[in-house]
Amino acid sequence: MNVADAVRAAHEAGSAKLGTGKVPDYLEPQLGAASDRLGIAVAGLDGRVHGAGDWQSAFCIQSISKVFALALALRHDGDASTLWTRVGRSPSRRAYYSGLELEDDGGVPRNPYVNAGALVVTDHLVDGLGPSFRDEMLGFLRRQAGNDEIASSPGVVALERLNQHRNAALAHLLAGYGNLTHPVGQVLDAYAWQCAIEMSCADLARAGLLFADEGRAANDRDALPARDVRRINATLLTCGTYDGAGDFAYTVGVPAKSAVSGAILAIVPRRCAVCVWSPRLDASGCSVAGWEALQAMVDALGLSLF
Amino acid sequence: MNVADAVRAAHEAGSAKLGTGKVPDYLEPQLGAASDRLGIAVAGLDGRVHGAGDWQSAFCIQSISKVFALALALRHDGDASTLWTRVGRSPSRRAYYSGLELEDDGGVPRNPYVNAGALVVTDHLVDGLGPSFRDEMLGFLRRQAGNDEIASSPGVVALERLNQHRNAALAHLLAGYGNLTHPVGQVLDAYAWQCAIEMSCADLARAGLLFADEGRAANDRDALPARDVRRINATLLTCGTYDGAGDFAYTVGVPAKSAVSGAILAIVPRRCAVCVWSPRLDASGCSVAGWEALQAMVDALGLSLF
Amino acid sequence: MNVADAVRAAHEAGSAKLGTGKVPDYLEPQLGAASDRLGIAVAGLDGRVHGAGDWQSAFCIQSISKVFALALALRHDGDASTLWTRVGRSPSRRAYYSGLELEDDGGVPRNPYVNAGALVVTDHLVDGLGPSFRDEMLGFLRRQAGNDEIASSPGVVALERLNQHRNAALAHLLAGYGNLTHPVGQVLDAYAWQCAIEMSCADLARAGLLFADEGRAANDRDALPARDVRRINATLLTCGTYDGAGDFAYTVGVPAKSAVSGAILAIVPRRCAVCVWSPRLDASGCSVAGWEALQAMVDALGLSLF
Amino acid sequence: MNVADAVRAAHEAGSAKLGTGKVPDYLEPQLGAASDRLGIAVAGLDGRVHGAGDWQSAFCIQSISKVFALALALRHDGDASTLWTRVGRSPSRRAYYSGLELEDDGGVPRNPYVNAGALVVTDHLVDGLGPSFRDEMLGFLRRQAGNDEIASSPGVVALERLNQHRNAALAHLLAGYGNLTHPVGQVLDAYAWQCAIEMSCADLARAGLLFADEGRAANDRDALPARDVRRINATLLTCGTYDGAGDFAYTVGVPAKSAVSGAILAIVPRRCAVCVWSPRLDASGCSVAGWEALQAMVDALGLSLF
Repeated sequence: MNVADAVRAAHEAGSAKLGTGKVPDYLEPQLGAASDRLGIAVAGLDGRVHGAGDWQSAFCIQSISKVFALALALRHDGDASTLWTRVGRSPSRRAYYSGLELEDDGGVPRNPYVNAGALVVTDHLVDGLGPSFRDEMLGFLRRQAGNDEIASSPGVVALERLNQHRNAALAHLLAGYGNLTHPVGQVLDAYAWQCAIEMSCADLARAGLLFADEGRAANDRDALPARDVRRINATLLTCGTYDGAGDFAYTVGVPAKSAVSGAILAIVPRRCAVCVWSPRLDASGCSVAGWEALQAMVDALGLSLF
Repeated sequence: MNVADAVRAAHEAGSAKLGTGKVPDYLEPQLGAASDRLGIAVAGLDGRVHGAGDWQSAFCIQSISKVFALALALRHDGDASTLWTRVGRSPSRRAYYSGLELEDDGGVPRNPYVNAGALVVTDHLVDGLGPSFRDEMLGFLRRQAGNDEIASSPGVVALERLNQHRNAALAHLLAGYGNLTHPVGQVLDAYAWQCAIEMSCADLARAGLLFADEGRAANDRDALPARDVRRINATLLTCGTYDGAGDFAYTVGVPAKSAVSGAILAIVPRRCAVCVWSPRLDASGCSVAGWEALQAMVDALGLSLF
Repeated sequence: MNVADAVRAAHEAGSAKLGTGKVPDYLEPQLGAASDRLGIAVAGLDGRVHGAGDWQSAFCIQSISKVFALALALRHDGDASTLWTRVGRSPSRRAYYSGLELEDDGGVPRNPYVNAGALVVTDHLVDGLGPSFRDEMLGFLRRQAGNDEIASSPGVVALERLNQHRNAALAHLLAGYGNLTHPVGQVLDAYAWQCAIEMSCADLARAGLLFADEGRAANDRDALPARDVRRINATLLTCGTYDGAGDFAYTVGVPAKSAVSGAILAIVPRRCAVCVWSPRLDASGCSVAGWEALQAMVDALGLSLF
Repeated sequence: MNVADAVRAAHEAGSAKLGTGKVPDYLEPQLGAASDRLGIAVAGLDGRVHGAGDWQSAFCIQSISKVFALALALRHDGDASTLWTRVGRSPSRRAYYSGLELEDDGGVPRNPYVNAGALVVTDHLVDGLGPSFRDEMLGFLRRQAGNDEIASSPGVVALERLNQHRNAALAHLLAGYGNLTHPVGQVLDAYAWQCAIEMSCADLARAGLLFADEGRAANDRDALPARDVRRINATLLTCGTYDGAGDFAYTVGVPAKSAVSGAILAIVPRRCAVCVWSPRLDASGCSVAGWEALQAMVDALGLSLF
């Protein structure tokens, strides 16, 4: 099947699941009206993007920002990175917002994708980049996505702040273990800001190419070492969809990061990057229709790594 | 680098780790004298095998038998399989012999590779195949490995029986949850028998080709549906090295099954199957020198899936 | 209020709860017909017993046997007892049949009253008393209760055997940790035997006087050191009603041991011993009507320790 | 033995343990110099107080404030109290500062004495008493102790603030579950304030008489219903010394509340109240020398409830 047909077939498969799952209460004001929208975009190594449905609509990227933050942190640190002493790379079995495993593991989050781990990565990144953190991340995303209008939404930041108790608990717990460098409030602000960045499926698929193409970027400034990219993709496969990672690998079989806004960014090494978006979530925080569309896409084009 | 050179380089890299780790006490009588041996073999899709070190010495395959048992069970059941209602496919965070997660999850083991899950698979397989279970499995392994002398070692079975309390606890716990069809003693016997099957790195690499080659086998009788093979490989990546799976994916990046005898069988879809063996283990039950050798091999030949 | 009136009032209060709760499935053949019976007996330090309802009907004493087994073990060992190295004296938060805490605590059961702890005590007792264990325990109970017909019911033993998987799992787990001296089967048999001992509320209240009267017994052979009695009573208060112990202390306020047959033996130091029996249980395995009756009794006579 | 002799004997027994255990790092500036001091005071129902050692030195009462806060909350609410829907009364098995059980139990703390539970009680109390909370508590303590100079120490509050991350994590977690009425900062401030109240062993023994004397107070305003007192004492026995409660009941056998400053307030219903103080703590946060002294005191006067 050619890519354009596969994208259409995937959109159709995903559409059959619209109406299943639930938009998180706190994002209702932002995403409620879009509950049953579905977008899908695939970007090939040649940079061409195919899409279907709402593939050009922007939404907050939420936890997908964790992947880009991790990439920036690893690139900034280089070989001397101490990040992996502060965060693990093991699958989690609890919900992404839980502190249970954090406490069991003595303040070292299981991986960079659960919220506790992402707070550490953001703290680490702010540490490395200083006040330019936001400019660096926006610049990076704009260049990768080829879209100069990408920005963080103050409206979404406001919603995050209203729903911040679980993350604040994690941040204080991390601070109690000495695993936070900056004040809790500053880290929470930076984290809310990055979660509120708005991009479309097309934007994210293009930005994801960096991870599909072994770290190659149009400009040297943004390129990543191939070894770091392999490691990011590996952790995405084992940890990127949280406690759903085992089932996701079993049914879809590619590295992917889910987001509470209903987006999933999937990386197919040496092939392409795919982004789907549909806001209704399952119990593990993954888009129901998005998962289905992605699975259809992977089946149609034989993209499974296995 | 060509394959022969890569095998030699991998053997050299692994050798640097000999002496690190520990042979499990209960296997000391069987493997103590071989503590610092190291073998590595790789089988290409064309069936050619390259090896280095003790690649032709036989050892008990232990938990690697779980992969073949799962394959037999899925093939026997076909589309109507109820196996996945009895066992999950999610990573575990506890040691492979633990019952903690089993009890938390209401008697459904996390995945087919932790001991509790393997007991369910064996129970399921005995259920499907009846008394011919042992003949079927031996025949399958002998044909895939091209070695008619493969057999289960009564001496190893005797050691298993002396060390069976943890598995007996798991089996009774499963039975208490109604997730065991046969008597506990019968399942434990069948499981000890399969763990005691003896094969060499060369044998296992050849037998592993089935999973590397999308289920194709020399005879139709042994072939597996490509979809089942993808799923087995996916679960191997997320669960095959137990609580070390996250680190293993990060450092090596291919589906693999570790065994308490120090063997690791790695599957590289559409490329090759690799088996390493060295008895000293790390805390997650994975061969220290074997892990190192495998990582060197994957790096040398660019085998990482990511 | 005088004792006779209090017993009647307690029986009345408990009767209002008949019909609430559930007889365990496996004891249905034995206790199903008695589901809505209720007995209560109180024995004063002077040996006089008052009762109401089915206070003279015999039932299997189940977990109440754990208290007497502990007493025999401590008395046999004397000051040199090593029992407390094998079992703790801390409250449990999991169900009495769970192995979760046992595994978390490295094979040392939380206390002598959860099933894992009771298996250790019985193993320890068999170790100390040898083949005379059953005679010793029966003789002890018969003398304390003043009833030579007390015996273990083969019918109940048979039911225990049909429902033994959870206990077998615990016993194997203990054995795996090296915390069992005798073969698993032998310990399970001894434990099933002691659970199947049949006594009435009157028998148990009389036998409980030993713990209410600081260890004094009619004959020196059965007497217990006052210090051991204090310790047994203390652990009964914090652990005797399992994960319901906090609520039980809050609402009733006396040391007590619940049993899966619906009996509760309560000890009021320097006052009396009370036994209630009604087979329907709540989620923590405690008799619903029995708890209510006991609470009424304690309120009426001002028996709370607090 | 008479009380004066028993107090001296207890002080001597406790002194033998001085030097064992550790003052918490964050309280080092406040208590470091007093590490090896030991005070003991006992107040009889007649109001007479006997003491030995540093029984008249003031220290921050820390978690002992939780008992008085609970008493004030229950008295304020009366029969209509909803407090027990917000906090349980079950023993905890984790450290008092842990959030593990809180998350497992869906935001309802195990009991009013672990930190999470105490935050809920303080929140509840502030809710009931409004801005007069601090005046009410100070007035209550001053009247019970007969000491008008009792006050909260700003220096200790400052230390609490520097060490507040774990409690802040708990408060945010509670807020995330909807189990906090006031803003996190306000609850943390109130809680730090009450922990920093300074009293001596003599003060606390006198104040504890309320719980020893079935709620009777010199003025009606401070009296408590006997039923509430029984319940407070019961929860103190099962939960007051945190994860050490089982061992404490076994060795000492009276309701007690430990504090991180090294104080222990013990209640002997219908007999007396005892307060010991020595700053070095064991792993469960209980004073080592204080525990020893208290045990000697209980043994000497036969105070055990069991």
